Amino acid sequence: MASEQAATKTLVPLSKYSKRVILKTVLEGGIGFVGQRIVIGGWVKSSNEVRKEPLPPPAPVAGGAPQVAKDVSCVEILQTRIPFFRSIMKALGGNHPVREKLESAIENLPPPPSVAVLQVSDGSCVASLQVLVDSSIASPIQIMATGTCILVEGTVQQPAVKGKHAIELKVEKIMHVGTVVQDKYPLSKKRLPLDMLRDFPHFRPRTTTVASITRIRHSLTQATHTFFMNNGFLYVDMPIITTTDCEGFSDKFQVTTLLGKEIKKEVVTMDDTGGVSLENIKASINEKSKQVEELKRTESNREALVAALQDLRKTNELAAQVEAREKSKSGTSIKTEKLKVEFSEDFFSRQTFLTASGRLHLESYACSLGNVYSFGPRFRAQKLESKKQVAEMWMIELEIAFSQLEDAMSCADDFLKFVSKWALENCSEDLKFLSKRVDQTIVDRLQLLTSTSFQRISYTEAVEVLKQVKDKKFEAKLELGMPLTEEHESYLADESYKKPVIIHSYPKELQPFYVRLNDDGKTVAAFDVVLPKAGKLIRASQNEERFSVLTTRINESGLPKEQYEWYLDLRRHGTVIHSGFGLSFDLLVVYATGLIDVREVIPFPRSHGKATN
Amino acid sequence: MASEQAATKTLVPLSKYSKRVILKTVLEGGIGFVGQRIVIGGWVKSSNEVRKEPLPPPAPVAGGAPQVAKDVSCVEILQTRIPFFRSIMKALGGNHPVREKLESAIENLPPPPSVAVLQVSDGSCVASLQVLVDSSIASPIQIMATGTCILVEGTVQQPAVKGKHAIELKVEKIMHVGTVVQDKYPLSKKRLPLDMLRDFPHFRPRTTTVASITRIRHSLTQATHTFFMNNGFLYVDMPIITTTDCEGFSDKFQVTTLLGKEIKKEVVTMDDTGGVSLENIKASINEKSKQVEELKRTESNREALVAALQDLRKTNELAAQVEAREKSKSGTSIKTEKLKVEFSEDFFSRQTFLTASGRLHLESYACSLGNVYSFGPRFRAQKLESKKQVAEMWMIELEIAFSQLEDAMSCADDFLKFVSKWALENCSEDLKFLSKRVDQTIVDRLQLLTSTSFQRISYTEAVEVLKQVKDKKFEAKLELGMPLTEEHESYLADESYKKPVIIHSYPKELQPFYVRLNDDGKTVAAFDVVLPKAGKLIRASQNEERFSVLTTRINESGLPKEQYEWYLDLRRHGTVIHSGFGLSFDLLVVYATGLIDVREVIPFPRSHGKATN
Repeated sequence: MASEQAATKTLVPLSKYSKRVILKTVLEGGIGFVGQRIVIGGWVKSSNEVRKEPLPPPAPVAGGAPQVAKDVSCVEILQTRIPFFRSIMKALGGNHPVREKLESAIENLPPPPSVAVLQVSDGSCVASLQVLVDSSIASPIQIMATGTCILVEGTVQQPAVKGKHAIELKVEKIMHVGTVVQDKYPLSKKRLPLDMLRDFPHFRPRTTTVASITRIRHSLTQATHTFFMNNGFLYVDMPIITTTDCEGFSDKFQVTTLLGKEIKKEVVTMDDTGGVSLENIKASINEKSKQVEELKRTESNREALVAALQDLRKTNELAAQVEAREKSKSGTSIKTEKLKVEFSEDFFSRQTFLTASGRLHLESYACSLGNVYSFGPRFRAQKLESKKQVAEMWMIELEIAFSQLEDAMSCADDFLKFVSKWALENCSEDLKFLSKRVDQTIVDRLQLLTSTSFQRISYTEAVEVLKQVKDKKFEAKLELGMPLTEEHESYLADESYKKPVIIHSYPKELQPFYVRLNDDGKTVAAFDVVLPKAGKLIRASQNEERFSVLTTRINESGLPKEQYEWYLDLRRHGTVIHSGFGLSFDLLVVYATGLIDVREVIPFPRSHGKATN
Repeated sequence: MASEQAATKTLVPLSKYSKRVILKTVLEGGIGFVGQRIVIGGWVKSSNEVRKEPLPPPAPVAGGAPQVAKDVSCVEILQTRIPFFRSIMKALGGNHPVREKLESAIENLPPPPSVAVLQVSDGSCVASLQVLVDSSIASPIQIMATGTCILVEGTVQQPAVKGKHAIELKVEKIMHVGTVVQDKYPLSKKRLPLDMLRDFPHFRPRTTTVASITRIRHSLTQATHTFFMNNGFLYVDMPIITTTDCEGFSDKFQVTTLLGKEIKKEVVTMDDTGGVSLENIKASINEKSKQVEELKRTESNREALVAALQDLRKTNELAAQVEAREKSKSGTSIKTEKLKVEFSEDFFSRQTFLTASGRLHLESYACSLGNVYSFGPRFRAQKLESKKQVAEMWMIELEIAFSQLEDAMSCADDFLKFVSKWALENCSEDLKFLSKRVDQTIVDRLQLLTSTSFQRISYTEAVEVLKQVKDKKFEAKLELGMPLTEEHESYLADESYKKPVIIHSYPKELQPFYVRLNDDGKTVAAFDVVLPKAGKLIRASQNEERFSVLTTRINESGLPKEQYEWYLDLRRHGTVIHSGFGLSFDLLVVYATGLIDVREVIPFPRSHGKATN
């Protein structure tokens, strides 16, 4: 039918694989599509019901009943002329038999004819299409609730009254309705705050904000692959389940099939404590835990971390002993045992983890194929609450053979310029919407990234700048040799320089073992890129290509050398100078969308105590 | 220097971020680049050493010593004229003092001048560049070993003798050498078989075969993103850590931070058994395990699987009891306990798994944004050895709102045509190489996929066809209602039809709970795509949009309904007709490369008992 009617007009292109027209197509086509009959599908964002205009009062004929057009039903006459009939009833007086009949007829009238005016979205763009459904086609109550899904056929027309919509759809046929149980539907109420929406990750993309975020995230994914393909990088998948721990001391998730199965166990019995108060010990544990988390977060200063961890463990043991003793006094002894798992019985016959970074593995592909990149999920079992870090995040990692730190810096710079430009060109409508709703500065920030040169400072300069700061008191103390915290980094980008900052030349103690030692023997060839608002986006390094230096660094870091034999192999045989970086894709989306919590830009975020679906 | 010399010639474009020229660029440029001075880097694939031509014998001067050119050193005179001097020594006779001096000089000669001829690859293409290094520039022994990394500067020239190389590089400066410890380097020996190479996943990409596979895999990734972007699909990341089990009964990896920590435990004591022989019980367990694995592999027939699992568990318990009793008789009692973990103490305060499929989660994005796809790692803790399935595989998943099974079929068809065409157009050199080395039919197979219509048969037809087969005895028996095994599926595509086969209309018992029930109440709206050689590539379905039917199916399947409340929510509120599929990307690479084991096409494969790095 559509094709018959549209023979002389522009044909509206159909969406592939779903026999409907995407609303973006309809809305962009605008009045060019007027008169065409199309099928559209989507979800109701909002709605109102418009009563049909009453028919004009009938012209009375001298001495007889009013004349009405023949195609108007009795019901419609009654519905649209209730005031007129009420005036007749009034004139007829108290007990007139016609009055009684009329009253009963009016009481039993069906709802008056109306038009449901729906604002419908199908996720293809920010704007909604105005859809008109006459009550003779579908009951308004069934289709008007926010969240209702409809698939309808109708004709594109210009609205009778000019308003914000250039076109609207007059529905002629309903093909599907997916109703809503209004009192149970969380999005029935007006605009839930984003943190409350997180409890409904499966409904979040139905909001305009999260739909916009999703489209921008999609577009940045596209831009990422395009950039690397344009620049001769090969895409390589890195393993998620791994036996090699890239950072050596970051918190890890274990992957196992042992839980719930029969296992051999080792009992560790608890011993004497001395007369210490449990409250004091617990307060001390609290303090020490915070210290450890901070050290872990900055992924640095291994010596300090090891000491802090030992300290914490001892204090924990003490607490357990005191608690056990106190409980046994009160007669409810709890037996605590430490599980020693036989990993030889596990699925992979050894202990395995979720990867925290693919960079080490990626090196083996760079050391044969040149420029390679990966893009995948990476994991940290970090308990510290953070708006910049959750347990599962997507990282872009790349490795370039025959390249030095400066090359990685150029690549990071080019990449950020490219993807920002891409977002500005491809997501203007979504950026406009989020500018209004979330953060007015996002377009400026993306433009800044496409044009500005980054501020380059050494770690030592960064510490000096931060120690001069008077207008803010940082939570963590800072001295030369100590790691920069999230707060320090943000201050540099947000306040000190108000632009992206590259911090380079870190002391070796603050960087992982694989980062190349500089000639001074003290600093290493690494840099971080910190963005305003989004924080530390990139961690880059030229990795140590010298076998003997690398071996020394592994030993100094107290890591199990046998775990890294395969990695050392890459230096034993055909070693190459190379550099690369890891980029937190989720934080890039944060930067581009203006959200302040990374959980808003991840479809199903996972953090400590939170894994909803 | 390069730019000076090349001022009047074509400039060779530099690789980004590594200040060298990619070998693909050099080799494609060919004789157009002759005379240019360039830097290249790569790894030595093979090499040989060519002695320099000896100088022509000196022209004797009447009555005096032979005359030689002034710029030739004494050493070179000796090195290149050893036969000549030997003849002089012979002439001089036994004890002549000059003879002694000459002999000693010849003995202490440095190695004669030579040219190392290296075949160097940098992973950018199949072909190698011939690189000539004079022994005066680098010791041949240091640079000639297979696997040596070099970064060199030299001039492009045409080989003196015409052969397979159009151009070669004459090295003038060595900038980096990464040597090889030959007796430890696994690739020193000629061509290791692929299954042995698997023990060295970090070196595999240095072989021409795995480098070609990697480039084809990269290209198929590119093609995948391009296809979906061309067709209006939004990319959405699905969670890896999940609490909802898509298939309900597939083997799962658990994600935890509990192992090695203190946990509360429940002891399960074993009880009486009766006088059964341990050997008999163990044989029975073996048998039953195989049965269970097969049922799991086919992901179907839940009722049969549940029964088989219960049976297996009971038999296992019996074995444990008998064993414990026998051991206690011999005085070495082993205490076996079952670990009851308090998941409330785990990282997410509940039990979490590695995802087996993102399709359920993806639906929530389709049910608001229309056409969506995901591309990420999926996991199955399957112990059964298989060439088509390992523990960690990358899947493409898509979901289309307002679409029916036929639409998903068109999409699958278009996708496979698109990516095959892409591979043929973009990977011709690699396909040519793999055709020679691995499988002559790969180009034909890809061409078949771009042009052929798939064979469509119902499950019932498939069973009938397979029951007629006389020339092969299948391992698993087949009757209507039983799942098709890998072997059955392969036979249909490889033998019966010799082309891709779509099998549709499965009995509901053989498909997951979420697949839409057909009007007959017995079959469901699902289809699989089976490719010749690669096997089952796609599992597709129209998913059940009707709340009540879905609830019934969850109950029938014996799944915990509370786990699926969020999924049911999508039907409670604004439900939509939709379909989609999951495609095993790794098997697509298998199809395109001709390899027979999926572990060859995965950079770091993970399978039962095997996780190397």
